[in-house]
Amino acid sequence: MTNELVYEGKAKQLFKTEESGVLRVAYKDDATALNGVRKESFAGKGELNNQITSLIFSYLAKEGIASHFIEAISKTEQLVKEVSIIPLEVVVRNVMAGSLAKRLGKEEGEPIPNAIVEFYYKDDALDDPFINDEHALYLEIATRDEMEKIRQAARVINVALQELFSKMSITLIDFKLEFGRDVNGNILLADEISPDTCRLWDKETNQKLDKDVFRRNIGNLTDVYTEVLNRLKQVQN
Amino acid sequence: MTNELVYEGKAKQLFKTEESGVLRVAYKDDATALNGVRKESFAGKGELNNQITSLIFSYLAKEGIASHFIEAISKTEQLVKEVSIIPLEVVVRNVMAGSLAKRLGKEEGEPIPNAIVEFYYKDDALDDPFINDEHALYLEIATRDEMEKIRQAARVINVALQELFSKMSITLIDFKLEFGRDVNGNILLADEISPDTCRLWDKETNQKLDKDVFRRNIGNLTDVYTEVLNRLKQVQN
Repeated sequence: MTNELVYEGKAKQLFKTEESGVLRVAYKDDATALNGVRKESFAGKGELNNQITSLIFSYLAKEGIASHFIEAISKTEQLVKEVSIIPLEVVVRNVMAGSLAKRLGKEEGEPIPNAIVEFYYKDDALDDPFINDEHALYLEIATRDEMEKIRQAARVINVALQELFSKMSITLIDFKLEFGRDVNGNILLADEISPDTCRLWDKETNQKLDKDVFRRNIGNLTDVYTEVLNRLKQVQN
Repeated sequence: MTNELVYEGKAKQLFKTEESGVLRVAYKDDATALNGVRKESFAGKGELNNQITSLIFSYLAKEGIASHFIEAISKTEQLVKEVSIIPLEVVVRNVMAGSLAKRLGKEEGEPIPNAIVEFYYKDDALDDPFINDEHALYLEIATRDEMEKIRQAARVINVALQELFSKMSITLIDFKLEFGRDVNGNILLADEISPDTCRLWDKETNQKLDKDVFRRNIGNLTDVYTEVLNRLKQVQN
């Protein structure tokens, strides 16, 4: 296995492999908040997110939703198809929380009858600004047709994920997706789906089971990620 | 003419008239910036904006674009059809400037090949947040069909205004529109179109001929508004 690093993000490293078109993802133990301004390391976090993402992408594949995921190859690593990442953070919201609650003057926890899909321009230097379709066209991020495909895919994935988390007695508040183009230009779900990228609240108690425990200093990150992994393993059996 | 105030905004007052469905707009001399935090009064400003808006709405009517405007009845007053204002600030951008240039990390003055249309939620307490169509649906601001109509109307108005300002040797950088529903639920262009609501740059010198001279303290507001009115009168003859 080669060791050429092709990309390093806040929570993952991507390496080349001997197979063309296949990358190795190594999940790191780092947690960041405020666009990387706050950073801390949690032993075991990489392992937890690699396993959670692998189980979720496997579940989505069974539901007919293709992603870049191929297979987990170690506790912290997985193989994925190489895609060219589209610089959009696609956020789907089922319940008011976080920045949107503030922006629209709504209470956290207020249900959103029809999920809201938002696009953010993935650019650290600009703090990932919220954009609309016309900004994305101007920035040549994606074509109109691609954006429609991404929006539809995000809605389909939302329905599948809500079903999965509901079985785990978890409310899927909101989550962030990233998509990429494969060598043939097909749009493929990429990146990860984990408590780093989702807001997950226990259905009974509304306890936060996601990165908000770190962002807001309200709990032990490793404990709640472990809880999510355990519940996921239970429903996958 | 009755004197019952039905609405007071930052730059205008709306009064009932003896005729049902008809309101009287009185333009004030006040200029505000930073969502009303900064406020100053300029003798003659109300007169200038009343005249400029009247000439522009008359021009648009000739171009087949209906608005709430009926007629100017004094230097500072006009009659308009009563509409229920849709709480959207509809911004059309032909050239990068202001908040969007900052948000997307672009230079002021960079042309936008296809105009960008943006919706902001008109809510002073929230600082008029930028929203997308799905937020507007969630907030029940307008239906999907109405938003499409508004977006199309904004684009048609943009073409007509670009033509008008081009004749005045002015580049229409960006502008803000508001729309309302009449008693039959028809969408009608409302509010005003003036140097308060447009960014206007002299075609030759790029001199700013709009409220940015006040916002940025770079010129005499009354002088540049007078210049816009004079050029407008010339091309309307």
